[in-house]
Amino acid sequence: MIAQVLSVGNEIISGRIADTNAAYISNRLESLGVDVIRHVAVGDDLAALIEELLDASERFDLILITGGIGPTRDDITRQAVAAAAGVELELHEPSLEHIRERFRSFGLPHMPQTNRVQAYLPKGSTLIHNPNGTAAGFRMQINRAHVAVLPGVPPEMVAMFEESVVPFVRTLLPRGVHVTGSLECFGMSESLIDEKVHDLMDPTANPLVGLLANSGQITVKITARAGDEATAGRLVVQTKAEVRKRLGGAVLGEDGQQLEHVVGQMLAARGLTIATAESCTGGLIAKKLTDVPGSSAYFLRGYVTYSNPSKTDLLGVSPELLKTAGAVSEAVARAMAQGARAAAGAGIAVSATGIAGPSGGSAEKPVGLVFIGIADEAGSEVQRYELRGDRERIRERTARLALDMVRRRLEK
Amino acid sequence: MIAQVLSVGNEIISGRIADTNAAYISNRLESLGVDVIRHVAVGDDLAALIEELLDASERFDLILITGGIGPTRDDITRQAVAAAAGVELELHEPSLEHIRERFRSFGLPHMPQTNRVQAYLPKGSTLIHNPNGTAAGFRMQINRAHVAVLPGVPPEMVAMFEESVVPFVRTLLPRGVHVTGSLECFGMSESLIDEKVHDLMDPTANPLVGLLANSGQITVKITARAGDEATAGRLVVQTKAEVRKRLGGAVLGEDGQQLEHVVGQMLAARGLTIATAESCTGGLIAKKLTDVPGSSAYFLRGYVTYSNPSKTDLLGVSPELLKTAGAVSEAVARAMAQGARAAAGAGIAVSATGIAGPSGGSAEKPVGLVFIGIADEAGSEVQRYELRGDRERIRERTARLALDMVRRRLEK
Repeated sequence: MIAQVLSVGNEIISGRIADTNAAYISNRLESLGVDVIRHVAVGDDLAALIEELLDASERFDLILITGGIGPTRDDITRQAVAAAAGVELELHEPSLEHIRERFRSFGLPHMPQTNRVQAYLPKGSTLIHNPNGTAAGFRMQINRAHVAVLPGVPPEMVAMFEESVVPFVRTLLPRGVHVTGSLECFGMSESLIDEKVHDLMDPTANPLVGLLANSGQITVKITARAGDEATAGRLVVQTKAEVRKRLGGAVLGEDGQQLEHVVGQMLAARGLTIATAESCTGGLIAKKLTDVPGSSAYFLRGYVTYSNPSKTDLLGVSPELLKTAGAVSEAVARAMAQGARAAAGAGIAVSATGIAGPSGGSAEKPVGLVFIGIADEAGSEVQRYELRGDRERIRERTARLALDMVRRRLEK
Repeated sequence: MIAQVLSVGNEIISGRIADTNAAYISNRLESLGVDVIRHVAVGDDLAALIEELLDASERFDLILITGGIGPTRDDITRQAVAAAAGVELELHEPSLEHIRERFRSFGLPHMPQTNRVQAYLPKGSTLIHNPNGTAAGFRMQINRAHVAVLPGVPPEMVAMFEESVVPFVRTLLPRGVHVTGSLECFGMSESLIDEKVHDLMDPTANPLVGLLANSGQITVKITARAGDEATAGRLVVQTKAEVRKRLGGAVLGEDGQQLEHVVGQMLAARGLTIATAESCTGGLIAKKLTDVPGSSAYFLRGYVTYSNPSKTDLLGVSPELLKTAGAVSEAVARAMAQGARAAAGAGIAVSATGIAGPSGGSAEKPVGLVFIGIADEAGSEVQRYELRGDRERIRERTARLALDMVRRRLEK
């Protein structure tokens, strides 16, 4: 079973955005056991897309198309697929109603006429419902290939891929199943993890073990093949246990869990509440903690104390300390965490103060210098980091390190 | 002059990494006036690459290849290009010396034998020097196309592209230049913008006008061609003025500006300070405001008042109001904004309270119901929204709507 990903849009081929959809789809298809062997991207060009589609439909079993199903006349994917399949476009009434309903739900009684085209699908195609937008997806057979069409907007594409395309692809796969699992790691470098599990990473082995890095969180991905699901599942469980043994405390969770979910579960399980006090991260730690549905059970409040007076006012950090140690210092990070814990009446508090740049650094306190503090019933601790990268990277990394510090503290 | 980008590597087609090289190269080539009309990615597969190359060499004037010129036997780009050109590989002595020299400079007297293959180039090709690595690049003609080969490692690729490929491409181009610009819009749907500028979007027109949507921010992109930069620039300025006239207050800025930057500039220009009071967005509005370097000049503090007691404690929202109107209500949004402004001593404050879901909704107050409040010297206002989508989307959209409400308030 071989597949091609076909991305449509001037924004891709002109380089205004990187084609992250192709990476997402390939990664997921590979984990299902489909070999993706080619990516192609073309612009909003009807003739070019028809040509690509006819060519690919004779060489691949599965073609995933993203993009070009918006409401504007740049959006040519519907016509191209219909033309390649040799059918007409026809109005799909339930989709039209879905689009109207979305406009009504935004308080707009009239759907613009331009959106009407989004309810036209190639005759004989099967709808792929879009829970997050007006662009209806669809799938149909062209020559050898099953062709599935999804929007280019990532959150819409992802929801439709997971809800509709994954179950469909599973029906196409031969018996014998793939089971995948992963361990999520933080606080150990990719190269060190690679060293520790290198012997398990033989590309012909079963299970297959691979690494994937994303902003400091390293995923150890495990894919097992077997005649039945139970056997493949057992292989994954065994390999997870072996990898856990080798990586120890760096393993924060399994199967896509993010730091904020793990921290949330630990807080909920221990009946602890949390508060945040942030300077350089500007609310990002609180944002991540509250990304988790149900976080109101343990997240009480967050202080974004960007100015010095706000650190004194809200957290009780003394003006003298701010003057002598400086706002970016171990002592202030500690005082922020202790102050937030006391003011919020929380079980634990985490703080961050640092220099995110690009300006504001000095020889003594360079851009990237960050202090993260924790205060709880047992006391307090502060970690010092010198981080690299631009403002966004330093802030993102600081927020993740802060969450990981809470995780490790709670594990003790 | 039309071009294709051809990326080589299993890490691309398996989705382990997104193909940011293709985006970089396309963006730069477009700015030079080369039309990139196709991206293709294939794995480390000699036959597949030769086939792609032969096909593309008959259809394009320029082919940029990245990847597959490392020292391992997976690296098949050198052989593929030589085979497509019908020539042999031959040892390029200066490149061999360059590789040896790099190893010496790292304190390693012996170059591994595997690296020797990196000094073999197709006969008749021209070296593209790699200042940052051992992989030699090269360029040569195959059929209609000029083919340039660069490594896949982004910093090496970028340096070689800028140093060697850009000057070469300039020699191929006819006189005449492209100038691009954009208007950034928020608060008007893509389809309505399309309706208003539809007549300007003829694909054969000059300037060329196109739309690009990203989480509610719509970019109207304008590309003008002319014999010289001044003339092309004037065309862009004229079209910008015309589009601005049609879209009015929906235009928030130009040339890639984001809402948070525009709001920051407006605050700084007016000498105003800002504070935030967030419930459902959990710190995201503060995070966005402090994404901007230098935001400490106007951003004083943020309150993430997730619990009811924190709304009372920090913002002075009365417990009676929270009980009678509910935490998610127009009255509480207004009280949060007013309370934050007073407590922080800020010129303006913005608040958000809502139900981000997935649970917590009711018939009367469904998931997606959001109130955004603003308080300033002149008074206060609250907007009510019913948003769709998952938790992340509702929070992201709320934060953007809040920033846009500040922008529109400041414009008055």
